[in-house]
Amino acid sequence: MSKRKNETVPYTLVIHGGAGTISKARQNEALEKEYKKALREALQKGGEVLKKGGSALSAVRVAVRTMEDCPLFNAGRGAVFNFQGGHDLDASIMDGKTLKAGAVANIRNVKNPVELAYIIMKKSQYVLLSGADALDYALENGLKIEDSQYFRTEMRYQQWLKARGSDHMFLDHDTPVDDKKFGTVGAVARDKRGNLAAATSTGGLVNKRYGRIGDSPIIGAGTYANNHTCAVSCTGKGEFFIRLVVAHEISSIMEHGGKSLAEACEIVFKQRLQTLGGKGGVIALDKNGEVVTLFNTKGMYRGIKKEGERDKIFIFDQ
Amino acid sequence: MSKRKNETVPYTLVIHGGAGTISKARQNEALEKEYKKALREALQKGGEVLKKGGSALSAVRVAVRTMEDCPLFNAGRGAVFNFQGGHDLDASIMDGKTLKAGAVANIRNVKNPVELAYIIMKKSQYVLLSGADALDYALENGLKIEDSQYFRTEMRYQQWLKARGSDHMFLDHDTPVDDKKFGTVGAVARDKRGNLAAATSTGGLVNKRYGRIGDSPIIGAGTYANNHTCAVSCTGKGEFFIRLVVAHEISSIMEHGGKSLAEACEIVFKQRLQTLGGKGGVIALDKNGEVVTLFNTKGMYRGIKKEGERDKIFIFDQ
Repeated sequence: MSKRKNETVPYTLVIHGGAGTISKARQNEALEKEYKKALREALQKGGEVLKKGGSALSAVRVAVRTMEDCPLFNAGRGAVFNFQGGHDLDASIMDGKTLKAGAVANIRNVKNPVELAYIIMKKSQYVLLSGADALDYALENGLKIEDSQYFRTEMRYQQWLKARGSDHMFLDHDTPVDDKKFGTVGAVARDKRGNLAAATSTGGLVNKRYGRIGDSPIIGAGTYANNHTCAVSCTGKGEFFIRLVVAHEISSIMEHGGKSLAEACEIVFKQRLQTLGGKGGVIALDKNGEVVTLFNTKGMYRGIKKEGERDKIFIFDQ
Repeated sequence: MSKRKNETVPYTLVIHGGAGTISKARQNEALEKEYKKALREALQKGGEVLKKGGSALSAVRVAVRTMEDCPLFNAGRGAVFNFQGGHDLDASIMDGKTLKAGAVANIRNVKNPVELAYIIMKKSQYVLLSGADALDYALENGLKIEDSQYFRTEMRYQQWLKARGSDHMFLDHDTPVDDKKFGTVGAVARDKRGNLAAATSTGGLVNKRYGRIGDSPIIGAGTYANNHTCAVSCTGKGEFFIRLVVAHEISSIMEHGGKSLAEACEIVFKQRLQTLGGKGGVIALDKNGEVVTLFNTKGMYRGIKKEGERDKIFIFDQ
């Protein structure tokens, strides 16, 4: 069936706020409510864009930006501390229509890394910029800058103090810090014109060092979007997602193997990631609006908005 | 047919020294000879490893290291100058047997970036390290360090002077500098046990800035190896290779689409890369020892060693 020019499809937005060993026992109720509220807000703001006929690309930007601004999540404000006690931020965005992409790794002081990733995609000849030199690009392009204090939260500081001195890095959810488990954020969307987009943003692993880059700013690993297949955003121990090229692999299994989105996600998560011992989660959305949220951890913060349906927010059960 | 335990397969090594607008007219004969000699040396040293029963992983390391040490290629010694007049080096390596990988982006002063990528893979919990902080890791692990002067070649300096001041970045082959066209290096190998491996190393684009990272250190984009399919190393304008996840896409088309290596490379290079306007080349080797070298530029420095056959060195014709 071919779609007529002005015909529209139902829009969809899916977001995540990280996956990890979130357990009901450890999660106190008040905090659970805060998370759900924050997820609902991101879903609402991103959804508003789609409702008005905006692009999937704008919707994932807005949803991820909203979560970057929320201190509960490990992205933007509230990012984990690195080995030196600073905040290194990673983000990426991809447009499924054009296969254009932008990403930034180990950026500091940029309030919304996803906006920088977007500007890199939109205005530059690059895909991936990194480190202190990428800040020059942010400054030249008028991105909003914040001092280090802005990104600092007491909870993250305590989390870092417990990790510091060790050579140990961990997912923020897996820390020994009680009742505080947060994570990478991401969004995938399909707009009324049927275009797909994906975006991801993170502060990476607690106490990370040596300029480590995870999967979040890597197109194909943590983020991928292609109108012919699906849009994907991942969260978890990035090294495994890079080795398996997870986001792109899901798309490839659909495109070349003729599998459904659900089957592709199952193959990658239940078979490949499991075999290597990788932990994490994924949100994915195919060109027909099918949604998959999958994780092999105890929980994943996530929300789903489908046009004409009630918003859904989950933390635990698949 | 199942392979008996001690049965071996013929080893194969393929290398490249970059692709670009190398034209016979611009290439003088003496320089062409130098290139061929350098390629032959890398092929010989890497091949020696395979001949003695060494691993594909060791062979690609040795071949790439040999080209990093040669000032003719844009990798290690002889790398292009970045915007600030320094040398930012990228490299990656992947083991097709374990899907383990190591990579480094924007590293300075490390004599052999491919060795650092290997050590990251072998010893650390990371896949990708970057920038000045990654130098700490290199120092802690005893990697060989050189001062900036070591990496400097007069030819690269002149090339940079011509680009400096402009916001222009280009492939080193595409510069206005006469008779001087060099590039990213890479190797793929199959050892006697049938294991595959791939490695890539580069100085990136001339006059690059903002901490730009290309495809060479990105697993899935510039480098990929998987015993079930193939080993791939790319060269060209990295942004296109990242957006198309080229190396992994070739593997996926084989694995999920049931295509041959040659067909997969054709689809990615002749269709996808062409559609986006990307330029570059690829060397690839499948699990059965089939070799593909393909480029949509005028030339690519490359060499092929197959057990029991005469070594082949090419610059122009496909």
